[in-house]
Amino acid sequence: MKIAVIGTGVIGESWIRLFLAHGHDVVAVDPAPGPLPDGVTVTDDPAEAVAGADFVQENGPERLDVKHELLAVLDAAARPDVVIASSSSTLRPTDLARGAPHHPERVLVGHPFNPPHLVPLVEVVPGEATSEAAVDAAMAFYAGVGRTPLRLHAELPGHLANRLQAALWREAYSLVERGVATVADIDTAITEGPGLRWAGVGPIAGQHLSGGAGGLRHVLEHLGPGTEALWADLGSPTMTPELVDRLVTQVAGTDTDALLARRDAVIRAVLTAREQ
Amino acid sequence: MKIAVIGTGVIGESWIRLFLAHGHDVVAVDPAPGPLPDGVTVTDDPAEAVAGADFVQENGPERLDVKHELLAVLDAAARPDVVIASSSSTLRPTDLARGAPHHPERVLVGHPFNPPHLVPLVEVVPGEATSEAAVDAAMAFYAGVGRTPLRLHAELPGHLANRLQAALWREAYSLVERGVATVADIDTAITEGPGLRWAGVGPIAGQHLSGGAGGLRHVLEHLGPGTEALWADLGSPTMTPELVDRLVTQVAGTDTDALLARRDAVIRAVLTAREQ
Repeated sequence: MKIAVIGTGVIGESWIRLFLAHGHDVVAVDPAPGPLPDGVTVTDDPAEAVAGADFVQENGPERLDVKHELLAVLDAAARPDVVIASSSSTLRPTDLARGAPHHPERVLVGHPFNPPHLVPLVEVVPGEATSEAAVDAAMAFYAGVGRTPLRLHAELPGHLANRLQAALWREAYSLVERGVATVADIDTAITEGPGLRWAGVGPIAGQHLSGGAGGLRHVLEHLGPGTEALWADLGSPTMTPELVDRLVTQVAGTDTDALLARRDAVIRAVLTAREQ
Repeated sequence: MKIAVIGTGVIGESWIRLFLAHGHDVVAVDPAPGPLPDGVTVTDDPAEAVAGADFVQENGPERLDVKHELLAVLDAAARPDVVIASSSSTLRPTDLARGAPHHPERVLVGHPFNPPHLVPLVEVVPGEATSEAAVDAAMAFYAGVGRTPLRLHAELPGHLANRLQAALWREAYSLVERGVATVADIDTAITEGPGLRWAGVGPIAGQHLSGGAGGLRHVLEHLGPGTEALWADLGSPTMTPELVDRLVTQVAGTDTDALLARRDAVIRAVLTAREQ
């Protein structure tokens, strides 16, 4: 297949690596591309890029007006049966599709997690105009490049996984705001604690396991009232400049290259272990 | 060293495995113990167990009155310099220490994550009466058995990691309550998405990475307003019998043996990858 990748930032570049690794031809569109993998064709003309494409992955700037301008070009140039998937993490597919007047039914969100060539999850979110055929084609396409597509049934701010992350970040920032924990404390608490389990077993299945023979029912009926009391104690921080400064100061000094290497090594190790 | 492990449920049994693996002598106290690892001495008399112990790890039922009854016996029988660490996930160390009138300064919380012989995090929480010497001794002891002790600076419901988990569970249950996602969707979203990253890089360091050269400041200043809007959209479910039923029904059919094996295999793979 020939895949058009629109935008070659961090996410676009990782998509390109994935698609090439699965034997696809890739044409990338960027007015000012950085260094890209060998084997990709680069152009600054989106219409040219999608003219012969079988799938379009759009990774433009996260602004609806910019996306609409781009989608109008893509929609006019791509074959009518070709899915246009947007990596958008914040925009609704229904709103995106308004930018594709010819064939809004082939527009959807295909939201990856960084880096998409390693992390399998792709949230597939149809808009009001999206056809089932387009959803099916996107699900099959992502599965074909070794991803785990998850079809969502509602257009929600943050889709699904980012809502779960946002809930955790809110309490994390709140603890820093209150001065009862540092950024390092919080990161350690996750990587040395629940984060180790969540790579293998999801948060609800994990509770089911912790209930022993009684499973999730035992957990929820025993911990239910305690959980509600704990929820009531969770914080609602305001992202003031002072809180941002405190978070940024505490995270400073992180060796990002070492951390990136560790992140990717751990993801690869987990994926290998899960295949066995 | 000789370690007394009080209570031999899921957590106590895992502590025993850890302490034995590190060459300690272990005496376990349980009125009705299940099958335990070879090499552990079992008694039903807590005073006898702690009489010659160098460290006490208490895993009794999660009720303050029961803990107080137990702590009175342990405090009277253990050498004054011996730390009594409680695995309690819900009780405050200040409240626990009231059950140890002789030496409340050696009582603290040493809260593990299941299973403690695999998951490194131990939250060390001093109460108002706890001495610095006891905190230091507990930190050194847990580090000596290959754990990652994290000293907390406030007595909070849920300590630290369980607050972060509770925040995530709250949104997860809310999505199920609203009918927009299933338990399987949520578990997949984590294990195939952010959960893969959190084993290697904590949630805030992970945001720092995602900001590229601009780091966490770039992320917070760009996504700040969007994050606050997303927070405002997160749910506050009520744990009604209907919601419990829905969660339990959706998690049913999980092969818990296979899931436990997968959880432990993934944890081991991550720990090995991180050592390299």
